[in-house]
Amino acid sequence: MDSLHKTKKEVKWEILETKELLHIDSRLTISVQKVKLPDGRIINDYYHVEFPHSVITVARTIDDRVVMSRQYLHGYEDVSIVLPAGTTEKGEDPLETAKRELLEETGYASDDWKYLGAMKPHTNYGCGKVYFFYAANAKIISEPDRVDLEDMEIVLLHESEIINAIKNKNIISIGTITALSLAKIYLQGENYYAK
Amino acid sequence: MDSLHKTKKEVKWEILETKELLHIDSRLTISVQKVKLPDGRIINDYYHVEFPHSVITVARTIDDRVVMSRQYLHGYEDVSIVLPAGTTEKGEDPLETAKRELLEETGYASDDWKYLGAMKPHTNYGCGKVYFFYAANAKIISEPDRVDLEDMEIVLLHESEIINAIKNKNIISIGTITALSLAKIYLQGENYYAK
Repeated sequence: MDSLHKTKKEVKWEILETKELLHIDSRLTISVQKVKLPDGRIINDYYHVEFPHSVITVARTIDDRVVMSRQYLHGYEDVSIVLPAGTTEKGEDPLETAKRELLEETGYASDDWKYLGAMKPHTNYGCGKVYFFYAANAKIISEPDRVDLEDMEIVLLHESEIINAIKNKNIISIGTITALSLAKIYLQGENYYAK
Repeated sequence: MDSLHKTKKEVKWEILETKELLHIDSRLTISVQKVKLPDGRIINDYYHVEFPHSVITVARTIDDRVVMSRQYLHGYEDVSIVLPAGTTEKGEDPLETAKRELLEETGYASDDWKYLGAMKPHTNYGCGKVYFFYAANAKIISEPDRVDLEDMEIVLLHESEIINAIKNKNIISIGTITALSLAKIYLQGENYYAK
C-alpha cells in the first residue's frame, strides 16, 4: 500500500481491451475497457468518456482585471461568470485555440502567454483534457465576434470581485475556479504581486 | 446581448425532448436533448452526460494540515494527490457520503462540517454534480478501511506543500484544486487565518 515510492509504471493499470459503445462525431465517445490492475486483478467493465480537448484562459488587463463573461450554460442549467474557453479543433495547438477563443469571445488579445498545465477532468471517466493558460497585459482590439449559441456579457473583475462572485455563487464553474487558482499560484511564484 | 440584467428564467433553455442513448446502471447515462433557446432557435442534438453525484472534502487537522491521498487514478492514467472523495449512494445525503468517504479512505473524522456549495462539472454536458465540504479539527479515529481498487497512501499537507504540489504537477485534479480554493475563500471569510 505504499504507492508514494512506486514508479508511475508500477502503479499504472493496463488497458487490455477497449470496446466503443457510442460515438457522436467529435463531441462524445463512450467506451468500455477491460483493465488489469498492478496486483493482477481484472476489471471487465471500466467506462471511459472522451470529450474534445478544451482550453481555459485567465487573461489579465494592465489594470489588474480578469476578462470574463456572464452567460447561461446549458450543462449547468444555470448562469455563471466564466473565463474565456473553448474546444480545440482537430490538429489545432491548444495555445492557438486559447488565442482564438479569447479574441472571438471577448475581443481581447495578448502577446504574453504562459501555459499553466493540462488536466483530465474526471478521476474515473477521463472526460477529455483541459489546457490552462495565462495571458498578461490583455488589451481589447476588436468587438467580440461570437456567432454562437450563448447570449453573453463581458465582465472585467478585480481579484476581490472574483472572490465575492465565488462566495455568492455567481461563479459556479470548476474549470474557471481551477484556472484562477493556477494563475494565482503562477503569479505568486513570479513575485508579480510583490513588484 | 445583455444577459446580466435578465433573470435566470429569461435566459434558461427549454428541454423539449430527451432521448436516452446509453444507460449503464448508476454509473453513466448519455442522452440527447431537443432544446429551445430563448430567441426561439431549436437545437435538435444537444448531448447530456449524467454521472453519479459525488463529494469532495477538505479536512483540516488541528495542526493546519489537509488530509489527502496519493493514488493512481485510471481516468487520468496518472498518479495525483487528491482530497477524499466518493460518489453518493442512492438516496444518501451528500454530507453523509462525505463523512463516510473521509473515514473509509483516511480513518479521519470531524464533528465540525461546513457545506461549501455544489457545482455541475461540465458547461455543456453537465456530468453529474459535485458537493464540496470543509471539515475542521479532523482527527484520526481508525485505520483506513478501504476495500477498493485504489492502491493509496495518506499524506497530510500544509498549505505551502499543497501549493508546491500543484506547481510540480503532483496535484492534477480539477475537483481537488476547486475544493481547496473554496475552502480557502471560506476560511478567509471567517478570519480563520487572522485568529
